[in-house]
Amino acid sequence: MSTTGKMVATALCGTEMKMLKDKNLQHQHYPIIMGHEGAGIVESVGEGVSTVKAGDKVIALFLPQCGECTSCLNSADNLCIKFKQGETHLMSDGTSRFTCKGKPVYHFGNTSTFSEYTVMNEISVAKIDAAAPLEKVFLVSCGFSTGYGGAINTAKVTPGSTCAVFGLGGVGLSVIMGCKAAGATRIIAVDTNKDKFEKAKEVGATECINPQDYGKPIQEVLFDLTGDGVDFSFEVIGNPETVAAALASCRESHGVCVIIGLIVGVQLNISGHLFFSGRSLKGSVYGGWKGRDGASKLVSDYMAKKINLDALITHTLNLDKINEAVELMKTGKCIRCALLL
Amino acid sequence: MSTTGKMVATALCGTEMKMLKDKNLQHQHYPIIMGHEGAGIVESVGEGVSTVKAGDKVIALFLPQCGECTSCLNSADNLCIKFKQGETHLMSDGTSRFTCKGKPVYHFGNTSTFSEYTVMNEISVAKIDAAAPLEKVFLVSCGFSTGYGGAINTAKVTPGSTCAVFGLGGVGLSVIMGCKAAGATRIIAVDTNKDKFEKAKEVGATECINPQDYGKPIQEVLFDLTGDGVDFSFEVIGNPETVAAALASCRESHGVCVIIGLIVGVQLNISGHLFFSGRSLKGSVYGGWKGRDGASKLVSDYMAKKINLDALITHTLNLDKINEAVELMKTGKCIRCALLL
Ligand SMILES: [Zn+2]
Ligand SMILES: [Zn+2]
Ligand SMILES: [Zn+2]
Ligand SMILES: [Zn+2]
Repeated sequence: MSTTGKMVATALCGTEMKMLKDKNLQHQHYPIIMGHEGAGIVESVGEGVSTVKAGDKVIALFLPQCGECTSCLNSADNLCIKFKQGETHLMSDGTSRFTCKGKPVYHFGNTSTFSEYTVMNEISVAKIDAAAPLEKVFLVSCGFSTGYGGAINTAKVTPGSTCAVFGLGGVGLSVIMGCKAAGATRIIAVDTNKDKFEKAKEVGATECINPQDYGKPIQEVLFDLTGDGVDFSFEVIGNPETVAAALASCRESHGVCVIIGLIVGVQLNISGHLFFSGRSLKGSVYGGWKGRDGASKLVSDYMAKKINLDALITHTLNLDKINEAVELMKTGKCIRCALLL
Repeated sequence: MSTTGKMVATALCGTEMKMLKDKNLQHQHYPIIMGHEGAGIVESVGEGVSTVKAGDKVIALFLPQCGECTSCLNSADNLCIKFKQGETHLMSDGTSRFTCKGKPVYHFGNTSTFSEYTVMNEISVAKIDAAAPLEKVFLVSCGFSTGYGGAINTAKVTPGSTCAVFGLGGVGLSVIMGCKAAGATRIIAVDTNKDKFEKAKEVGATECINPQDYGKPIQEVLFDLTGDGVDFSFEVIGNPETVAAALASCRESHGVCVIIGLIVGVQLNISGHLFFSGRSLKGSVYGGWKGRDGASKLVSDYMAKKINLDALITHTLNLDKINEAVELMKTGKCIRCALLL
């Protein structure tokens, strides 16, 4: 049930940036072909593959959708049980499809997009509109969908609400777009790098604040600004202290804090008092979208000009310049660097 | 805006039991008249009081409803800003209305129900059906509403779902009733005291388990029993380790864990991984009901036989026997001991 895809566009997402800092993150196996945000064209399909064919444009999905498990069959759920396949770093038949000098190379996140050709399970690709520009819509593969859906599907941001977004990378900016689309009237963007503020305002932030400009905890600053705290807060960094601050920034009774940053391998240390009065802390994976359905829908939304991906793609390089892209991502000016093949 | 009430029925709730163990809990001031679960009859009202009059049957509310603050005016919210009045241990005019041998005695929880007469703010009493039996409906004042509403309002338990309830005191049993009323098909009751299992089954538990009977963590036991974890879990003890276990017992993607036990003054230490895939952790106060509206409605529901309070009242004593009630509450057989005046 495998699909060989010719990658056309891919990018470094926050997860790869974290992996470069911490090789043990998510118990990776090495050598590995990284990359989980990408779009391409099906080159060939294996036996039994019926939902995509050679020539189809597809989005690579780190979150598969088998369509048959209890999660896939539950409308409130999107964590297909086959997601865990990614943890084996192998295909579903237990093999690796990559070799280097005769030795096997591990897969990453069911996708391995940093490669001219990759092999994915059928359930890990989403067929999309044949007219979609792959060098734009690859963003639906992870970053955009994760942030935008985190606001719309997980938090269920309400019209007229006040939101705070901690962390203004590509995913954080997509959260801002989701809050705006859901009708939030006040969207407070928070980052320690003020170079990110211009773009945040461009995509919908109504205010931008730098915690380092204040002599008190950021949650107190947000209470000062809003009176009662924000209705929705989003942690898009993956830092346990920021999670606690984002939760504390919410309204006491009905505030909802969504954790979008990657926080595996860390302990959250949170005052029980923060929950006493009714706050919620929620996790979110792939923005609550089911893998195949969500990616196809969001590409259609892009084609219908309902969502804007172009603002997030600030740089473009060829894949062989990926080390330059790593350096660019470390600055505040690069949101996503499209890596083309 | 004060109301003097003649108390008719009151009871020890989990909070008083915790205060007896830990005098510093919630920064109490002493001497104090405890008690926050009670029902009585209005004896007299102060100047400006218009919503209750002498002779009205009322429920004492630790959670007031002023009707004017942003929380009271928001349908998603129930934490009236006047709740914090309770932290002063005084009336809203800054005075104490109790004395003992000429010295002031502090109020507790806006209510102080362990007294023949008590003085409460108008917004801290809910007028109820004149035919309601106070020796039963006092339970709407805290325990029943907190648990039942935690399931119905906070968790929003769905028909056909699987629930787990950790802690089978009066509030935990009320959670079970709420899960059942919401249509849960499987309700797993968890407690280390098996004396509580009979009553749990009587009010709706479909299974009862004792974590001490298993050689593995309770979350693993619940995964063994359910396959994918429970849809909703409730922590009704106020123990940080149990909160972590209850969260870990939920389905990875859409599981919701509601903290109903009192967890102020403690730190929660939770693996970030538990949130990675989409679980939610929610706090709940007074079961999400607005104070006055909720208490009046629940008493009407009792009169209409829609809810069952009688099963929770296992013992009855006169208030002067309160020390006997404390001992009874420490056993598994006493759910609530109604203290009558
Ligand atoms: Zn599935
Ligand atoms: Zn990603
Ligand atoms: Zn109020
Ligand atoms: Zn209580």
